[in-house]
Amino acid sequence: MNQDYIVPNNWSIIEEGFDADRVKSSESIFSIGNGAMGQRANFEEQYSGKTFQGSYVAGVYYPDKTRVGWWKNGYPEYFAKVLNAPNWIGINVTVNGEALDLATCKEVRNFRRELNMKEGWLSRSFEATLHNFIEVKVETKRFLSLDMDEVGAIEYNVTPLNNDAHIVFEPYVDAGITNEDSNWDDKFWNILSVNAEHDQAFIVSHTMKTNFHVCTAMQAQLSLNGKVLAENKTVNKTDSTVSFEYSSNVNKGDTLTITKFGGYTVDRNHDKNDLVSVAKKNLSKAVSLGFAKMLQQQKEAWAKIWDMADITIEGDIKAQQGIRFNIMQLNHTYIGTDARLNIGPKGFTGEKYGGSTYWDTEAYCIPFYMATKDQNVARNLLEYRYNHLEKAIENAEKLGFKNGAALYPMVTMNGEECHNEWEITFEEIHRNGAIAFAIFNYHRYTGDFSYIPDKGLEVLIAIARFWHQRATFSTHRNKYVILGVTGPNEYENNVNNNFYTNYIAQWCMNYTLEIIAKMKTEYASDLSRVLSKTNLSDSEMSEWKKVADNMFYPYSEKYQVYLQQDGFLDKELITVADLPKADRPINQTWSWDRILRSPYIKQADTLQGFYFFEDQFSLEELERHFDFYEPFTVHESSLSPCVHSIQAAKLGRMEQAYQFYLRTSRLDLDDYNHEVEEGLHITSMAGTWMSIVEGFGGMRVVDNKLSFVPKIPEQWEAYSFKINFRNQVLKISVGKNETKFAVEGGGSMDILVNGKEVTIKS
Amino acid sequence: MNQDYIVPNNWSIIEEGFDADRVKSSESIFSIGNGAMGQRANFEEQYSGKTFQGSYVAGVYYPDKTRVGWWKNGYPEYFAKVLNAPNWIGINVTVNGEALDLATCKEVRNFRRELNMKEGWLSRSFEATLHNFIEVKVETKRFLSLDMDEVGAIEYNVTPLNNDAHIVFEPYVDAGITNEDSNWDDKFWNILSVNAEHDQAFIVSHTMKTNFHVCTAMQAQLSLNGKVLAENKTVNKTDSTVSFEYSSNVNKGDTLTITKFGGYTVDRNHDKNDLVSVAKKNLSKAVSLGFAKMLQQQKEAWAKIWDMADITIEGDIKAQQGIRFNIMQLNHTYIGTDARLNIGPKGFTGEKYGGSTYWDTEAYCIPFYMATKDQNVARNLLEYRYNHLEKAIENAEKLGFKNGAALYPMVTMNGEECHNEWEITFEEIHRNGAIAFAIFNYHRYTGDFSYIPDKGLEVLIAIARFWHQRATFSTHRNKYVILGVTGPNEYENNVNNNFYTNYIAQWCMNYTLEIIAKMKTEYASDLSRVLSKTNLSDSEMSEWKKVADNMFYPYSEKYQVYLQQDGFLDKELITVADLPKADRPINQTWSWDRILRSPYIKQADTLQGFYFFEDQFSLEELERHFDFYEPFTVHESSLSPCVHSIQAAKLGRMEQAYQFYLRTSRLDLDDYNHEVEEGLHITSMAGTWMSIVEGFGGMRVVDNKLSFVPKIPEQWEAYSFKINFRNQVLKISVGKNETKFAVEGGGSMDILVNGKEVTIKS
Repeated sequence: MNQDYIVPNNWSIIEEGFDADRVKSSESIFSIGNGAMGQRANFEEQYSGKTFQGSYVAGVYYPDKTRVGWWKNGYPEYFAKVLNAPNWIGINVTVNGEALDLATCKEVRNFRRELNMKEGWLSRSFEATLHNFIEVKVETKRFLSLDMDEVGAIEYNVTPLNNDAHIVFEPYVDAGITNEDSNWDDKFWNILSVNAEHDQAFIVSHTMKTNFHVCTAMQAQLSLNGKVLAENKTVNKTDSTVSFEYSSNVNKGDTLTITKFGGYTVDRNHDKNDLVSVAKKNLSKAVSLGFAKMLQQQKEAWAKIWDMADITIEGDIKAQQGIRFNIMQLNHTYIGTDARLNIGPKGFTGEKYGGSTYWDTEAYCIPFYMATKDQNVARNLLEYRYNHLEKAIENAEKLGFKNGAALYPMVTMNGEECHNEWEITFEEIHRNGAIAFAIFNYHRYTGDFSYIPDKGLEVLIAIARFWHQRATFSTHRNKYVILGVTGPNEYENNVNNNFYTNYIAQWCMNYTLEIIAKMKTEYASDLSRVLSKTNLSDSEMSEWKKVADNMFYPYSEKYQVYLQQDGFLDKELITVADLPKADRPINQTWSWDRILRSPYIKQADTLQGFYFFEDQFSLEELERHFDFYEPFTVHESSLSPCVHSIQAAKLGRMEQAYQFYLRTSRLDLDDYNHEVEEGLHITSMAGTWMSIVEGFGGMRVVDNKLSFVPKIPEQWEAYSFKINFRNQVLKISVGKNETKFAVEGGGSMDILVNGKEVTIKS
Repeated sequence: MNQDYIVPNNWSIIEEGFDADRVKSSESIFSIGNGAMGQRANFEEQYSGKTFQGSYVAGVYYPDKTRVGWWKNGYPEYFAKVLNAPNWIGINVTVNGEALDLATCKEVRNFRRELNMKEGWLSRSFEATLHNFIEVKVETKRFLSLDMDEVGAIEYNVTPLNNDAHIVFEPYVDAGITNEDSNWDDKFWNILSVNAEHDQAFIVSHTMKTNFHVCTAMQAQLSLNGKVLAENKTVNKTDSTVSFEYSSNVNKGDTLTITKFGGYTVDRNHDKNDLVSVAKKNLSKAVSLGFAKMLQQQKEAWAKIWDMADITIEGDIKAQQGIRFNIMQLNHTYIGTDARLNIGPKGFTGEKYGGSTYWDTEAYCIPFYMATKDQNVARNLLEYRYNHLEKAIENAEKLGFKNGAALYPMVTMNGEECHNEWEITFEEIHRNGAIAFAIFNYHRYTGDFSYIPDKGLEVLIAIARFWHQRATFSTHRNKYVILGVTGPNEYENNVNNNFYTNYIAQWCMNYTLEIIAKMKTEYASDLSRVLSKTNLSDSEMSEWKKVADNMFYPYSEKYQVYLQQDGFLDKELITVADLPKADRPINQTWSWDRILRSPYIKQADTLQGFYFFEDQFSLEELERHFDFYEPFTVHESSLSPCVHSIQAAKLGRMEQAYQFYLRTSRLDLDDYNHEVEEGLHITSMAGTWMSIVEGFGGMRVVDNKLSFVPKIPEQWEAYSFKINFRNQVLKISVGKNETKFAVEGGGSMDILVNGKEVTIKS
């Protein structure tokens, strides 16, 4: 744990007291979003201290020219990254001619920030003394509307406390923004027009290269003690900004309020010539609803989300706060209504990882969305990859593969590979496996096979082809080997026979063959269509079978474990417990070669395979592998603790499972990895959800039924969650001594509890 | 072979006919240098076609901010690179108002370029028809003086052929130059002053950050038909250029000549306030000598070089031309008089590899300089590393090593690491071994032990410490292993137990212990000084011994060969002969992962170990390893063919040895690696020399005596070379049927010929 300032609270994230050193951390933690846009919790008023400004519009990205030290054949030309979008939240505030700026004012008192998770809004309040001795009280509230996902609203109140004061509000839109992580300081946006009309203002700009057109708009309204004031403003325009300036003399104790509505319209969703007119309508609608009514709608929309997705924990406020924070941020990032979108590892909370799609989606996020949303959301995520299949085939061709083999990119916005470290881009190929596994997982969970004949089979065939071609025959071992890979544990590069990779490769080939066999009888015409489209022959399939049946796995007879890769036992096997504390996290203190030759594991690797394919290993095997690998695991990936929490719970090691749970659920709140300033770890938040539902709850799908093996950490009195399973909602409440199940809304459900079949009624 | 336009000639490199597509290639091949400065063969007159401009001043570099895609802990902050220096060779030529430009004129006839290797000059001649229908004949000659190494001279003649013409010469100095390979388009030079005085002009500039001050100067003289014309010129100055403009009306058939002297003075060699005055004196001296006299001195200086360094080959003009080209370019690059300098892989012929020092110096260049120059030259090269020892220790500390362990940088200008690919920077650690080997090699060759107690032992201790710490104990194998390295074959990265690395590591520790044992009796006081300075204890030494005695080597019982690294046999062992031709060079057609998992070897790796430590392996072992590895070797490093040529000759495979010889000696002339435009492969040129002397001549040093096993390729009638050995010069002439030996300048020498002791008299 590297920070501890978030006030424990069941339903809110709260910061008390102003500390400039925490501003960037809080800007990440208090981020808000509505799936269509999102923003870091930057202050509305000017702030001259250290800050990381960020507003993001879903699906609007820029292909930034790749930067490398030494070019290698096959590197992608560009890295697609989410763009910092024009700022519409800004409101400059001047009091008696002095700018309000928390970095420079004489004193800040009673600073408080709250992210109300239940109702979906962010507020901030403080009292500040300026150098001109005026004391003001400031209270702000803002939210991004779930109902009108192109609009956000801000209410900004200033009350002079010790004197009458002349207050100027200057709400603005600023399109003169940049990305912090620009590779070449290229210009990402081109501004087309800056306009003000009545009390609305618009900047239309488009991204360079990708040519996304975005209208950033605002409308403002001034009131005093709740009464709207007649408009009396100056309009200021520059090449990249537009602002309204409102001046008022305010008596001591009176409250001057600026209510600002703003947001984006994008040509991903509208004709580009309509962007301004749609924005006008949005703003007018927002103004006519008013801030209070919109806020009310926001609360109702969030109530719906919580009704399905909430997890309650009794007796452990920090654990409760953590899980709700995770669930809320997942919903800020991705709601599942747009199949063109996906889940960036940092969501709308930072620039790192470019906002792009990683294997995190398939490996960690899909279970959460399947269980807390309509199953179409998960299907949308699968279709995202189907829509990128052609590009994945092209990507594989660039690397020398043939005949329709696909290698999905490690990092992508539009299906093209973006990443440019050879050990990742070219070698972290296990990602292909997770994409196939998600198809299996979707079918296992939803029972909906229709996706597979419709689209999934083509993806599976292309992936099986890749593995078949990527494996090579070692005459030496008389087995197929997979050389030169990076497994999920990125603290090993270019290794041979990574257990996880070999295993998932074998599984992909076998699963595809199973699916084809099943379709021969049940979906013959779909099968023949796909076989003919993909030109897949029996002889190619029997080649797959040969490779799958003869895959090599490194194994230690001494330890009775599969080795993470060839040669793992040659390392100096010193456990993490014996590592000096000052050396950790090793990725911040050790050079890369030292990390690579150490036994330290960044995230579950062999154990990730045991998680995906748990039916294929005994509990004893799991225990042996857990005991062998976990002591070498440094969990320096956000994706590590959740899988370990689930495995520990399965092994009945509840204290360990609980510690891993805390680490995953409060990873960002407590900044375990010393990097929360860069943004939140959104995709691992789905892992947090899994560690409760699959870990403590022991939920699995077994033979088309939900199955539970409920356990509870000693620290908790009770916990509960809901599962949307095949159009029924099951509520599970686990107490110290008993677990209750209930089907919501009528009907009954057969489930397994600790292996015994039970029928649950509503 | 990718080009074939160089006219075969014993003593000259000749190009006939103008081809714009060959300009960049010829700019590299016809490069000239004098150890203190060098330049690509750029045209003096304006050239608007594709060109790569380059002038370089020895030791003047710039630390360009590192560019990486993904930063890794321990990467150096900058990449020191040789700078393109201000241009002093330029002469704009205008004929009747039209600029002479070979890229745009109507016609070019009888274009001929010659690099006269015997005499050390570059000439060019052509006839051009301009768009104004004037035909001119141009003849130029230039050289960089060996005697006055801050000065070069150019004679530039223009003769109107079909009409009288108004000719303007504008010789200039241009400091507004850039590097092609700048990482961030930073400005590398800052110009301090631009001045003209009488017929001399000076630009003083300094490099940013490193703050090297350089005065670039010129003086010009106009003459008609050989008679000096009275000065009548205009002076033009800009912020970054200074030029003189000479106008003359020239009758048809008359020859107008501009003679230009120019060059650099640098504060590496002079007080920075004296740069202009020294330059003035240099120019005045050059002018008073005159072009013809300076040229005469140049011929004499080159005659001295050739007297010692020449290798004659009879009956094979291309082979003859190749070896002289190699010897000449080595002398252009490094003469050995300045211990602060070293041998950049591209010398003064391009920007690639930053002009920095690599292990090439120790592994390939030192033998050439030991045998063809005074032995102090080799000692200077050793001292270069001694002077960098402290920085090598710091470098190792950055990577987690302790207690005075040193890791010499992969790439350096001033002792600090510059390279930033983790698999090279952190893992290609075998370079440390070559630096120790060079100390051994110097002593073996020269018999001069004094360097070791004086300086070498400290280097050896620091290197032994590194290897001791870098090896780890594998309980699994009950041996010491070296994990995560890149061997000389850079087509494998992050491998375990690379045979070459383990072997040279073991050798370094053993050799250092041997040296210490020897010094105990013979140099006790030096030893005690060094032991106390380095704080080396008996127990640390016995730890070294334990590691050295228990080093692991991967070995194949089946093939009876040491494996290049763990797991080599798991690869698909398809030989290069079975690779499609279109796939080669694989580094230009394959993605990196594909190269890495292939068995293909970029350059001698296991065989490099057999070359360094040949006494420790039998001829049968060499043959077995050669037959195992050579078929997988693609020789895509310039450093590969020479070692293979030597080994093939040793195995009596003369045809193969000859083919490898051609490939190394004509690597650039025939552009085997498709990259000559970027510059020449200077360091591999020393390998070419080795393939004749050590390969065909079979020269070794055995028990303080030169030993020869002379062989001759079928294609040759005879060849000869000279060897400077312990202050005596031996000439070796090998014919089809006999080999003659002669000691020059009196005295006698005991040598071994085919293992038999022989006394050679002069």
